[in-house]
Amino acid sequence: MLKTKMVKPTASAYEYPLLIKQILLSGPRYEPQQEIVYRDLFRYTYGELYERICRLANALTKAGVRPGDTVAVLEWDSHRYLECMFAIPMIGAIIHTVNIRLSPEQILYTMNHADDKLVLVHDDFVPLMAQIKDKLNTVEGFWLLTDKPSESKHDNLSSQGVSFQGEYEALLAESETTYNFPDFDEHSVATTFYTTGTTGNPKGVYFTHRQIVLHTLVISLSLGSLAGQPLMNSGDTYMPITPMFHVHAWGVPYAATMMGTKQVYPGRYEPDLLIKLQQQEKVSFSHCVPTIVNMLLNSEAAKQADLSGWRILIGGSALTKGLTVAAREKGVILTGAYGLSETCPLLSVAYLNEKLRDLPEDEQIDFRIKTGIPAPLVELAIVDEEGNDLAHDGQQVGEIVCRAPWLTQGYLKEENGSEALWRDGWLHTGDVATIDALGFIQITDRIKDVIKTGGEWISSLTLENLISQHPGVSEVAVIGLPHPEWGERPCALVVLKDKQTKGEDIQIHLQQFVAQGKIHKWAIPEVIEFVDAIPKTSVGKIDKKKIRAEKIQ
Amino acid sequence: MLKTKMVKPTASAYEYPLLIKQILLSGPRYEPQQEIVYRDLFRYTYGELYERICRLANALTKAGVRPGDTVAVLEWDSHRYLECMFAIPMIGAIIHTVNIRLSPEQILYTMNHADDKLVLVHDDFVPLMAQIKDKLNTVEGFWLLTDKPSESKHDNLSSQGVSFQGEYEALLAESETTYNFPDFDEHSVATTFYTTGTTGNPKGVYFTHRQIVLHTLVISLSLGSLAGQPLMNSGDTYMPITPMFHVHAWGVPYAATMMGTKQVYPGRYEPDLLIKLQQQEKVSFSHCVPTIVNMLLNSEAAKQADLSGWRILIGGSALTKGLTVAAREKGVILTGAYGLSETCPLLSVAYLNEKLRDLPEDEQIDFRIKTGIPAPLVELAIVDEEGNDLAHDGQQVGEIVCRAPWLTQGYLKEENGSEALWRDGWLHTGDVATIDALGFIQITDRIKDVIKTGGEWISSLTLENLISQHPGVSEVAVIGLPHPEWGERPCALVVLKDKQTKGEDIQIHLQQFVAQGKIHKWAIPEVIEFVDAIPKTSVGKIDKKKIRAEKIQ
Repeated sequence: MLKTKMVKPTASAYEYPLLIKQILLSGPRYEPQQEIVYRDLFRYTYGELYERICRLANALTKAGVRPGDTVAVLEWDSHRYLECMFAIPMIGAIIHTVNIRLSPEQILYTMNHADDKLVLVHDDFVPLMAQIKDKLNTVEGFWLLTDKPSESKHDNLSSQGVSFQGEYEALLAESETTYNFPDFDEHSVATTFYTTGTTGNPKGVYFTHRQIVLHTLVISLSLGSLAGQPLMNSGDTYMPITPMFHVHAWGVPYAATMMGTKQVYPGRYEPDLLIKLQQQEKVSFSHCVPTIVNMLLNSEAAKQADLSGWRILIGGSALTKGLTVAAREKGVILTGAYGLSETCPLLSVAYLNEKLRDLPEDEQIDFRIKTGIPAPLVELAIVDEEGNDLAHDGQQVGEIVCRAPWLTQGYLKEENGSEALWRDGWLHTGDVATIDALGFIQITDRIKDVIKTGGEWISSLTLENLISQHPGVSEVAVIGLPHPEWGERPCALVVLKDKQTKGEDIQIHLQQFVAQGKIHKWAIPEVIEFVDAIPKTSVGKIDKKKIRAEKIQ
Repeated sequence: MLKTKMVKPTASAYEYPLLIKQILLSGPRYEPQQEIVYRDLFRYTYGELYERICRLANALTKAGVRPGDTVAVLEWDSHRYLECMFAIPMIGAIIHTVNIRLSPEQILYTMNHADDKLVLVHDDFVPLMAQIKDKLNTVEGFWLLTDKPSESKHDNLSSQGVSFQGEYEALLAESETTYNFPDFDEHSVATTFYTTGTTGNPKGVYFTHRQIVLHTLVISLSLGSLAGQPLMNSGDTYMPITPMFHVHAWGVPYAATMMGTKQVYPGRYEPDLLIKLQQQEKVSFSHCVPTIVNMLLNSEAAKQADLSGWRILIGGSALTKGLTVAAREKGVILTGAYGLSETCPLLSVAYLNEKLRDLPEDEQIDFRIKTGIPAPLVELAIVDEEGNDLAHDGQQVGEIVCRAPWLTQGYLKEENGSEALWRDGWLHTGDVATIDALGFIQITDRIKDVIKTGGEWISSLTLENLISQHPGVSEVAVIGLPHPEWGERPCALVVLKDKQTKGEDIQIHLQQFVAQGKIHKWAIPEVIEFVDAIPKTSVGKIDKKKIRAEKIQ
């Protein structure tokens, strides 16, 4: 089906750089009839995907995009985003996946910092673009992305104050269907995006072609062959529910494309639409943060739907047992995974081996909610403050450090920040964890979220997991608050399902875990506050920085 | 379970070379309880595998093996071979997997040519070693490999004329159980072995750590996630029936170890033992040449056994429909794959996509016996004599050329041979094939085996496939013989099942394919010879060079 042009290698005959164009070969070659679906608006096959990526590459080249240039994309999850993730790096340019949930000032900062040259922007973000366009230092042109290409007129595009070079679909329509994708150095940067986990300005991370290819191979293995119960194979249907700007939506669109898996892009995350697409397209694999699962399970649409067989990989925040059991009751299987923006992101998956798969389901869940076992090619250790390698006994707590072929070299243009990230040749994650004798990592906290009370450490994540198992609790966040006597004391913010539950019910609930030896009695928070919602970051994680700021001021 | 020592990187912090030691991380980490089995003699877990590899690395280091040194292994398929495939390259040395089926003169040639320093030799090859040891130019020591370590005495080892440094199991027993495996350049050579496909001396090919790691990732994907019907996952039991010296037994031991798959090593290939092991250990995945399947199916042991669920990947020679149907009747699923010694070897697998898997089984078999669809990361084309890219129409016949991240840089110390291999930046395979509109490659011949009759090309492999479908035929080889009028005419050598079939029965059988348009009438051989056996090469392929030599002399 797929016939590409023969490339005349530029380097020595034998050298074969790892390039993103190679990821694109297999899907269209193996499963040319498989579909890419965008909501109920657009649907085409892998054979056409390859052709559209060639058209896009031609359109970008015609627009003056050259190797090394950065192209920004501001878009909801779509087939267009997928096409950009291939075409832009395949011509040697860099895709900047702009975090559309940042403030306009932060978006402006990241676009200037990344030296964006061309900007592909969805209708919905045109007002934002109009607002910041005069302060963009390097941008030379804009393209419009729209779900209604037939209604958009070229000469009318500038009406909202942004001067467009053209509309995406129209530009593709007038471009050639083949492109001779060149070879170049595998260490060429392919993607960049910004992380806001720390204080100060967003920090840029960046990944090379070599890194993306290796990450794609290993995440494919981790989701398919290696997983005890395979999560995604070529026969599955995949729908991301993690925004594409968030670490290439964890790299799974690349993996799905390589494997020839049917892909469904949902645009914005409206629960009813997500459930409708899941039902209609028979989605069997997704990934998201726990908050989204919570939202989906509590949606009206989910109540009437049969969700059984839907496997969801959870990252971004710790997976609690309460949520995992609630999902299981709807037939949805949740599995934990772990990684950072800085790590491309895959570091570990909660892989259940043959022996663990023989356990009763409730005990299996205790393993499936863990941070997991390091993925292939990943070296991972926990270290103390002096960098000493700690024992894997499930007791010793240390910072997770790692090595893998796909870690960001540093923060873009930030020499100092990068020194904090890379020390002694290992990337320091800022997460503290134990590793048990079976090899399972269990994150207990972000270093900065650890609660220190009376000289002891309390894990906020452990407390959250235990509180989540109370039947009245919908969501929970635990932070440390300054205390004159103990240094810090834990404080729990709880969103209730039922409004009947009281603070002391939760304290009594926690007592049982003291009896079971899972926590010490001094870990039970005196302060349990009921709130309507828990503050989240732009990527849906619990925003403890914000909670602390509100509480402590 | 597996806790390795933290390595202090030698290069820049961020660089992470692809090294074979990384392949070994995942299996013991994921499935520490999984077993490695050697006949009914030896059985241990992945946890112990890692420890034994550390012991071996310590023993090799103590014996003076240094980075860049070459260590030769002469051994049947065993757990020891698997350990050597890891430990030798993991300390920076090179494993030379000696082809024990070559003549003593050829073995001597390859061992001198490869600069072997240490030789690990099984009991059975001690007489051979005694015969050639005085002509080995670079060898400094020998270790004994034996199935009866308790019976071997150190001071008695030299009795057969070879002076041994020690016996493998004893050397491991006295070594430390941990080893700090170093980082080094991923382009370091890890393995070497010799191919005898061409005239003259055997030619050495060699592969780097980077190449082995990438090949391992992709063959794992090809066997697991990517295959329509997965061939091997971590839950399977794997038994190679391809000698380990043959292209690292196609790289599958590395893949199985990475995936944590149970592995069974059968030693020598005795049909009854193979079937017994398959039954006893519940082997679900193997790979071999067609000849071995034929031998197994016709064995006494197979007649009484239930072989259903056994999936066998076929390489080395073309897979015929006759054999595939015969295997299917015993419940054994055969799938074709393709690669060369020069290509590490994976180039393609007969992958059936979702659409093809809906076909009736007989039609599926027509695809499963094809040469296949290129594996991930493999670029492949067919070209005419001027190097022009030919159409994928199932009609145009050209030489297969390829690019992939795991092709030998050239032949060891053979500048001229390497130039013939690498032309215009593409590796020339010497195989001629068509590629159809679905992307399936179909090899029609080795370039040198093509039969040219009256200006037309006849595919010897097509004729073999069609003749194999006659119920009386057990095996067949077709070669071209010189003919005064037509240039060449095909000649078929046939091994019969029943002794009743006559030459004209086969000619009548072939007529139906003329009627179906599958061959031209001039392709039907006038000469059909019945023989007791068909000559094979040292790796079990039909030896057409030898057949031609015997016929033409």
